[in-house]
Amino acid sequence: MKDISRNLTMLCDFYELTMANGYFHCEIRDKITYFDVFYRDNPDHGGYAIAAGLQQIVEYINDLHFEEEDIEYLRSKKLFGEDFLDYLRTFRFTGDMWAVPEGTVVFPGEPLLTVRAPAIEAQFIETYLLMMINHQSLIATKASRLSRSAKGRIVSEFGSRRAQGADAAILGARAAYIGGVTNTACTITDEVFGVPATGTMAHTWVQMFDDEYTAFRTYCEIYPNNATLLVDTYNVLESGVPNAIRAFKEVLLPRGITKCAVRIDSGDITYLSVKVRKMLDEAGLHECKIVASNSLDEYIIRELIRQGACVDAFGVGERLITAKSDPVFGAVYKLVAIEREDGSILPKIKLSENVGKITTPHFKKLYRLYDRETGMAEADLICVHDETVDDTKPLEIFDPVHTWKTKTMEHFTAVELQKQIYAGGKQVYELPAIEEIRANCERSIHEMWDEVRRFTNPHNYYVDLSEKLWTVKNDMIKERRNPKK
Amino acid sequence: MKDISRNLTMLCDFYELTMANGYFHCEIRDKITYFDVFYRDNPDHGGYAIAAGLQQIVEYINDLHFEEEDIEYLRSKKLFGEDFLDYLRTFRFTGDMWAVPEGTVVFPGEPLLTVRAPAIEAQFIETYLLMMINHQSLIATKASRLSRSAKGRIVSEFGSRRAQGADAAILGARAAYIGGVTNTACTITDEVFGVPATGTMAHTWVQMFDDEYTAFRTYCEIYPNNATLLVDTYNVLESGVPNAIRAFKEVLLPRGITKCAVRIDSGDITYLSVKVRKMLDEAGLHECKIVASNSLDEYIIRELIRQGACVDAFGVGERLITAKSDPVFGAVYKLVAIEREDGSILPKIKLSENVGKITTPHFKKLYRLYDRETGMAEADLICVHDETVDDTKPLEIFDPVHTWKTKTMEHFTAVELQKQIYAGGKQVYELPAIEEIRANCERSIHEMWDEVRRFTNPHNYYVDLSEKLWTVKNDMIKERRNPKK
Repeated sequence: MKDISRNLTMLCDFYELTMANGYFHCEIRDKITYFDVFYRDNPDHGGYAIAAGLQQIVEYINDLHFEEEDIEYLRSKKLFGEDFLDYLRTFRFTGDMWAVPEGTVVFPGEPLLTVRAPAIEAQFIETYLLMMINHQSLIATKASRLSRSAKGRIVSEFGSRRAQGADAAILGARAAYIGGVTNTACTITDEVFGVPATGTMAHTWVQMFDDEYTAFRTYCEIYPNNATLLVDTYNVLESGVPNAIRAFKEVLLPRGITKCAVRIDSGDITYLSVKVRKMLDEAGLHECKIVASNSLDEYIIRELIRQGACVDAFGVGERLITAKSDPVFGAVYKLVAIEREDGSILPKIKLSENVGKITTPHFKKLYRLYDRETGMAEADLICVHDETVDDTKPLEIFDPVHTWKTKTMEHFTAVELQKQIYAGGKQVYELPAIEEIRANCERSIHEMWDEVRRFTNPHNYYVDLSEKLWTVKNDMIKERRNPKK
Repeated sequence: MKDISRNLTMLCDFYELTMANGYFHCEIRDKITYFDVFYRDNPDHGGYAIAAGLQQIVEYINDLHFEEEDIEYLRSKKLFGEDFLDYLRTFRFTGDMWAVPEGTVVFPGEPLLTVRAPAIEAQFIETYLLMMINHQSLIATKASRLSRSAKGRIVSEFGSRRAQGADAAILGARAAYIGGVTNTACTITDEVFGVPATGTMAHTWVQMFDDEYTAFRTYCEIYPNNATLLVDTYNVLESGVPNAIRAFKEVLLPRGITKCAVRIDSGDITYLSVKVRKMLDEAGLHECKIVASNSLDEYIIRELIRQGACVDAFGVGERLITAKSDPVFGAVYKLVAIEREDGSILPKIKLSENVGKITTPHFKKLYRLYDRETGMAEADLICVHDETVDDTKPLEIFDPVHTWKTKTMEHFTAVELQKQIYAGGKQVYELPAIEEIRANCERSIHEMWDEVRRFTNPHNYYVDLSEKLWTVKNDMIKERRNPKK
């Protein structure tokens, strides 16, 4: 596969460097720290999100190093000591990392990724890790909603021209495929990641010719097996579809080709698609598909289907590639523990006046609990790292805020969601192929009840803390609020 | 400066390639075509936009070429002829290009960029050109609004972690600087583009130490000349500010340093900043600045200032780097003319049921008309390429829709806005330095009346067509609507 990677070690918030230099010059330097990546709210008030971006994080970590010109640049800022700059010359990631595999359904408050590393290293990678998870999880989640709204119909991503930069186009198309879209218009995402690229013609093709029929006929002659004709350059019903039918009949049918399509990119999609379907059927072109595009999102697609639009495939652009309705996935990276010199773990918490922003301390484990009969996911449970859920006996779980809301799990299977990605700086996780990630996403979505997956007012999926973790957290809050000193 | 460029020739919608192969195999191949880039609506219902992204377009065009692995990949799609694949081996941009310089205030309907090139070349570059202009103009425009809302105060961009991919972070910070922010947290944007990077500490710094005071004191000792202390990890008024004052007094003042700052990242910014200002002043720290951050945008900043918040600098993250309130800049790329074999120009138009989507045909010139006395911009005028505005005599301009709305310009200067960027495939435009682009933006904004620049219900700036261009367009619409055949 084509390699378009770059060394983006310097893509960090400047404060990661000032803090790194600061840690270097005091006793924090050698402290082993634990950080969690988690997010607080599902995009679009939905019931879930799809984790994505891990592959690019691994590529970033594997390539993490400062080049001589970076050191030169940093020296010019007149803020960093020479000993620190020298240290950066051999800077690498030597820590551990655990993460939820790409394509997994995740929920607010869960550790999507956990880092254990010396303070400088763990701190430094914050910006890039968050950016990558935030971007790709955002788009994968939106794509999951979009493709589900299409109820099995094809959904094509073609938003590159409205993407927020090249990576937003390239990796956005990758994340969209993970989330469930069928294919993309972004050629390089096919070349680099194997996401199937597709595309036929723009209005310009039609305009280039003296008339619409010649444009269509020429296209069918060159691409008899890939003829999707754009029928709205002049007038869909009076000109576009009649000309398309004529071109299909004169060029494709004599060759025995019945697979073809028309695309409508403007106007009233429901009204037009019903009329167009009738015209195509009357012409005997029953296998001719109808593709619709034009500022679509999951709500419009759902509504078109409800109205009875005769659409076989949807093209989705700007509203997917920018996640227009909610374009920020707000994952954060928070210190959750520090190791003492004896190797024991000291949990850390960040309080806030806003209770929703209080972090859950400690080095953790994340379980998904499945009903053994239905195979459906019933709850997630966050434990302290040294706990093990015994799924051979009943387990009472409880809501971490309204603790009187309890539920006893019986006949369940507990599956750990995080996999170890790095051990001592060494990659110990084999990155799955894109098709495997996409299949993981589909499986993970299917394990969720409809109530969790619905777009409007979904149920809150249970994400509970083990009693041990809950106690650690609440004791720390109480201690901070009522300090002894 | 560091080079982080990649060959992104393959970052194109797949249909650019199917159309290119199609043109190659018919008479369109050698046709000279004209395309305009323009947009239809200002972001956030504002009165203007800022053009940006040209430098990256030039870098893309200069590097435009297919590599052997790209050809291999395309062959594997089984859609393209060997003669076409062979043609791609030497594919380059050989055409002309004109564009409005980066940082210029622009308006809907204006040709921001015009391409004249053989059909295949002009068509192929569509996706990348649009993506680059859409992304950077979007962020530059948002940054212009944000920095203007701060009324001379510092505005720092620090949204990398929420950016939609690496380029969104890197080039977003570049575009934000063009639009008027003071600096960025994105280190690599400083290294590559010279946009000043800045940053001090996160909450983690404070949490790493046993207590807040030690964290602050340590930071001041390491960075006595760059001490911005984050005071909201525990409690701004009861702990953060008292500890900051103590650290400033004990570490900075004895060294004669009075320049320092505190940052508030949560809570009621107006209430807290007024209290904090009072505490700092009472401690004699009159030169200590107050920085505020936390989901700010132009509306919140304007409101904080109106409420009397004592804030000297604003840090802006996700709402700038994603242009959250309106994350799509909808520039399009439309065929406007084709050259006949005799070299004469045949204008092309795209009609639409939606009158706002009807294109303005022809190879054009774009003028900005300034009042000679005030120096203020009064109107823009789009002409046919062979027209020249004579600003030595009065000129009557008229609204292209409500043609009875006329205005006679007297004592004005007409300045052409587009510069030639390429001539026969050769770059003929020297890319300005980032500071020059930023200064151009500031100048261009200052040339606009307040009525155009305001956030809410701005005046529609006049963008008129010359009588000649208006006539061409209206004749073409009439002819299309009432075809002779």
